[in-house]
Amino acid sequence: MDFILEDISEAEVARRRAVYTPLTDTVRDLVDAVIRTEVAEDDLEEARRRIAEVVADLRRSQMDGAFGVRHTRENTGMAWGNAVIGVRNALAPPLDVVHDADGVRSEFTLGAAYEGPPGQVHGGVCAMVLDHVLGNAASVEGPCYTGTLTVRYGRPTPLGALVAQASVTEHSGRKRIVRGTISDADGVTCDAEGVFIVPRSAVDVPSVRWSAG
Amino acid sequence: MDFILEDISEAEVARRRAVYTPLTDTVRDLVDAVIRTEVAEDDLEEARRRIAEVVADLRRSQMDGAFGVRHTRENTGMAWGNAVIGVRNALAPPLDVVHDADGVRSEFTLGAAYEGPPGQVHGGVCAMVLDHVLGNAASVEGPCYTGTLTVRYGRPTPLGALVAQASVTEHSGRKRIVRGTISDADGVTCDAEGVFIVPRSAVDVPSVRWSAG
Repeated sequence: MDFILEDISEAEVARRRAVYTPLTDTVRDLVDAVIRTEVAEDDLEEARRRIAEVVADLRRSQMDGAFGVRHTRENTGMAWGNAVIGVRNALAPPLDVVHDADGVRSEFTLGAAYEGPPGQVHGGVCAMVLDHVLGNAASVEGPCYTGTLTVRYGRPTPLGALVAQASVTEHSGRKRIVRGTISDADGVTCDAEGVFIVPRSAVDVPSVRWSAG
Repeated sequence: MDFILEDISEAEVARRRAVYTPLTDTVRDLVDAVIRTEVAEDDLEEARRRIAEVVADLRRSQMDGAFGVRHTRENTGMAWGNAVIGVRNALAPPLDVVHDADGVRSEFTLGAAYEGPPGQVHGGVCAMVLDHVLGNAASVEGPCYTGTLTVRYGRPTPLGALVAQASVTEHSGRKRIVRGTISDADGVTCDAEGVFIVPRSAVDVPSVRWSAG
């Protein structure tokens, strides 16, 4: 695993985040608009042409491959390409995961781009969110990787405002058992149990504060 | 569940798909470029401004809420807003799920936007893909919903070319047990077991061929 050290200050991290957040948010807005637009087909082709021009300009200088996972000397994580929390990734809702005494918690909103059944969050997206928050809760105690994840779908999860939470509930040797839920205003819609494994070489992996997104 | 009938021919479905596919592919390209670009910060702001203009133009006429799930009289599914297979959803890789004698199978490529650990597919994205293909395999025999999904992570899944497959392996009352895997060139990276439930009111839900995306 190739974690990259970026030797920058916390203030510089915050400044860069403020530069990328509006751009990524606008791309999220574009993803939603492409799903929901009803403009004429000629206008769609014109939109495609203009977007392709922006892509060409952005690609004039770019990194090879994926963004990777970077961190500062203070161990602030910059997983900015991450599919669930990435500041530069328009696929990420993004989740902002907050640590509290009980574990971790995130309030987020899922729109049209996360749909599965009509008006409902795709079951796979629920699994993705739960995998992330459970992994985050498990990592509070130090590095680990996911062994198994079991998601139980109680009832459909509606698109809109949601809350996810997770906490470590049990330890067994090198295993941490983590439980978590997704809820809407009426309560829990689905829950999950994850078994996370502490690697024998845990000392080789930096413990990074991912809550910074 | 609000399935929408669109009374159009198979040829018209194909024609519309050919109109939206290049637009959505270009937005996917943009998502990747925003993660990987290294152009100057002024150029990022200029890109944001141009994308916001395209969004405003696309939103001049748009549907309320999410796309929903539409189908033709021939029961060809148009889940074009779907988070995993949607022709109009830039978040979807998209998966093209093919039915064969053994169940379902999909070859797909995941780039920078699906990253979790450095260079690897986010574990939650693996869960999302498995949820979808297992659900698809379960639905071949008729409508059902996901009860539980258990994902076992054998080893990291690298970004790049992957294959997912799933098939029904067992029946028990109203339950269908489905198993599936994700593989790279070296074999299986993670596998899943899903328990799918046949609703008592199964006759109310149209059986739609989702392989059409």
